[in-house]
Amino acid sequence: MKVILFLFLIVVGAAAAAAAPQINCLSWRLSVETNNIRDWKTVPAQCKSYVSEYMTSQQYHDDCNAVVNAAIEYAKTLNVSKEGKDLWVFNIDETTLSNVPYYARPEVGFGATKSNMLKFESWIKEGKSPAIPSALVLYKTLLDLGIKPIFITDTKEEFRQVRIANLKKAGYHSWFKFICKGENDSSAYSEHSGNWKTQKRAELVKAGYRLVGNLGGWGDIIVDFLLRTFKMPNPMYYF
Amino acid sequence: MKVILFLFLIVVGAAAAAAAPQINCLSWRLSVETNNIRDWKTVPAQCKSYVSEYMTSQQYHDDCNAVVNAAIEYAKTLNVSKEGKDLWVFNIDETTLSNVPYYARPEVGFGATKSNMLKFESWIKEGKSPAIPSALVLYKTLLDLGIKPIFITDTKEEFRQVRIANLKKAGYHSWFKFICKGENDSSAYSEHSGNWKTQKRAELVKAGYRLVGNLGGWGDIIVDFLLRTFKMPNPMYYF
Repeated sequence: MKVILFLFLIVVGAAAAAAAPQINCLSWRLSVETNNIRDWKTVPAQCKSYVSEYMTSQQYHDDCNAVVNAAIEYAKTLNVSKEGKDLWVFNIDETTLSNVPYYARPEVGFGATKSNMLKFESWIKEGKSPAIPSALVLYKTLLDLGIKPIFITDTKEEFRQVRIANLKKAGYHSWFKFICKGENDSSAYSEHSGNWKTQKRAELVKAGYRLVGNLGGWGDIIVDFLLRTFKMPNPMYYF
Repeated sequence: MKVILFLFLIVVGAAAAAAAPQINCLSWRLSVETNNIRDWKTVPAQCKSYVSEYMTSQQYHDDCNAVVNAAIEYAKTLNVSKEGKDLWVFNIDETTLSNVPYYARPEVGFGATKSNMLKFESWIKEGKSPAIPSALVLYKTLLDLGIKPIFITDTKEEFRQVRIANLKKAGYHSWFKFICKGENDSSAYSEHSGNWKTQKRAELVKAGYRLVGNLGGWGDIIVDFLLRTFKMPNPMYYF
C-alpha cells in the first residue's frame, strides 16, 4: 500500500511539474521592471536561480549605474535654486541600501519564498545593509550640486534610529528630511491618488519645495509632484 | 606628407575610439525600457549589433508575449459594461504592427542611424508591416471579452487608408475608432498635460467611454485617463 501511495505521489508530482507554465525569466524580469506585471507576491519558483544569479552579478550593478548616470546627466541640467528649495527624493530598500545579504538566505531564496516581515525586520534591526555604490555616487553628486537629499521610506518609525545609523555607516551622512512610514500611512496605491508617499510629497510641494527628482522602486514612481523619476532595478519584490 | 597625415588620422581615430564611453548594451536597453533614459535620438553605435540581434530574436517575441499575457490576465478580471462603453487603446508602430523589416535595412541600422522621416513614410506607404503576433492575440481576446479596440497612432492623416489596409491584411479586422495624428497635434510631452494622445483620450472619457487599458510605447504610457497601461518592448526609437 505504501509503495502504491509513493508511486501515486511521484506521478501526481510529475504531472504538476509538467502543468507549471514555462516561464522565460528574462521576459518576466523585463515585465516586472517595466511595471507590466504588478502586485506580484513572490518570484516564480522557476526563476529563483535566475534572480539569484542576476542580483549577485556585475550586470545588476551595471544596470544600477546606467540608471544613476541618467539621473546625474539630468540633475546637471537643472537650474538649482539659491534658496535651497530643490529636493531629491530617495527611497531606501534596494535603492540606496541593499538587502541582498538578507534575500540571499536560503529560507528567503531571493524573493521566491513568501515574505516574512518579522524576519525582515530583525535583519533591518541589525543595521548591516550595505550601500548600493551607484546610489551613493548620485547622492554625493546631488550634494555637490546644491540639491538636498531627502529620504521617504517604508521603514517603520520604530526603526528610524537604526536605519539612520545604517545609512551613516554606509556613507550617507546628511539629508534635509527623513520620512518614515507612520502607522496610519497606507501603501495601497491608486493610479489617481497614489499612496502615502504621494501625500508626503504633496505636503513638501505645498510648503514651497521643488521635488526635482526621485530614485526608487515602483512604490515611488508616480507621476505627480516629481519633475523626474528614476527606477532602480529590483526583481526580488514589489514594490 | 601623405604618410604622416595617414598616421595622424589613425592615431586620432584610435584616441576617439578610446574616448567613447563603454556602454553595457543590456543596461542601456533596460534603462530605455524603464524610461530612465528618455528623449534619445539614436541607438548608441556600440549597441547596433546588440539591438539588431535582440529585435530578430525569440527573446524579443517572448518579451512581447509576457506583456500581452499580463494584459490578458488583467482584461479577464474586468467587469465589462454591457453598453459597449469599454475601450482598449492600441498604438500601432512596434505595438500592433512591426517595422523591423524597415529598421533592418543597412542604412537604418536598427535605429543606430539618424531617423529619416521621408524614407520611413515611403515604407509605411508600402503597407507591408507584419503583425506582432502577441498583440494580435490580445486584440482577438479583447473582442471576445466585449472590449472594443481603438487605435490612437502617430500615423499622419494622409496615410490613414494605407495603414487601415495594412492592419486588415495583418489580421486586425475591426475597431471602434481609428485616430490619426492631425497636423496641429503635438507629440511634445509634459508630465502634467501629456501629449496629443492624452487630449484624445480625455475627449473619449468626456464622451462617456471607459479606457480600460492601453498597449503601446512610452508615447502612450501616461497615467491619466487609462485604468492600466502595458508597455511593449522597443529599443529602436523613442517613442
